[in-house]
Amino acid sequence: MRTKHSAGRWDVLSSEVVYSAPPWVSLALDTVRLPDGRLIERYHQVTLPDFVIIVATTPDGRLIVERAYKHGVGHVTLVLPAGMREKEEDPIVCGRRELLEETGYGSDDWRLLGEFVENGTYRCGTASVLRARDVRRLGDPAPGAAGDLEQIETLLMTPQEVARAIASGEMVTMNSVAAFALATNALLTVP
Amino acid sequence: MRTKHSAGRWDVLSSEVVYSAPPWVSLALDTVRLPDGRLIERYHQVTLPDFVIIVATTPDGRLIVERAYKHGVGHVTLVLPAGMREKEEDPIVCGRRELLEETGYGSDDWRLLGEFVENGTYRCGTASVLRARDVRRLGDPAPGAAGDLEQIETLLMTPQEVARAIASGEMVTMNSVAAFALATNALLTVP
Repeated sequence: MRTKHSAGRWDVLSSEVVYSAPPWVSLALDTVRLPDGRLIERYHQVTLPDFVIIVATTPDGRLIVERAYKHGVGHVTLVLPAGMREKEEDPIVCGRRELLEETGYGSDDWRLLGEFVENGTYRCGTASVLRARDVRRLGDPAPGAAGDLEQIETLLMTPQEVARAIASGEMVTMNSVAAFALATNALLTVP
Repeated sequence: MRTKHSAGRWDVLSSEVVYSAPPWVSLALDTVRLPDGRLIERYHQVTLPDFVIIVATTPDGRLIVERAYKHGVGHVTLVLPAGMREKEEDPIVCGRRELLEETGYGSDDWRLLGEFVENGTYRCGTASVLRARDVRRLGDPAPGAAGDLEQIETLLMTPQEVARAIASGEMVTMNSVAAFALATNALLTVP
């Protein structure tokens, strides 16, 4: 299948940063030329931190899930462990650190499932989806170390419990849903 | 399971809009008080358009997939049909219009699978994930009507082909992955 080809690509003629608060948010206005020759001005691109999100399971197959207030959601919700990735940082190095700091769990079995873009129009951040197997408790969480403001409660849930939490609106962030699906859905790993 | 309770909620003491380009993007700085009493200033919240994303299948079980250049991704990629939802607009009304305009397909069998938040920290947009069954070709696409800048090529793909496209990096947006999983993954519909 043809993808990543240059056909259809927009030419970025200029990009003006109109708001910048590193490392959190920056906002740019691109001037682009479409393949049909049209000139589009003021096409917004939003840059948010890249991050890792982790599907971590215990030897008995339960997932590590966090219950926390998320300000983007506006209430307490369930999410998979995640954390900001520094530029050029290896996703697995980042995942090890974030999982340990947020939950106190570690693993020797890490795998990168893929890299995904949050929003196809505005971009926002990119997420490295990680799979950690056979996690075990290594110590207490150290949430302050990661700069987290949220009070995080760590839960162990079966895949069925996570699926029910998604169906009932208790897990509502796109990233958590997509990461869970990537790790657990046989369909998504068809060779 | 306890969720959506007020425990853990942050109090928003003020919210200052620092950039606004309706209906596309607005950016606010919230001043919040955490449950432990800490005052956090300049917590960014990004507002992007809410949208619908559509898992549409033909009577023989193939999915409607679009191949298009997406500027947020930076190259041609595969995505599920999606479109901006007006405030207060019914998601299914929006989905019918967007699917017809982008692909020329329609359906009499629509269902809302759920509402999801793009980013738990910054919010960004919310997505209504829709399921349309037994779609049929009603006419030609009218992409200009939706204000779309992309040249969209409509494909029909089996779930296995979509799964392979995700595994191989040909479908890279979180929303498409999550929506596909919600519609196709038996795990995610466990009662």
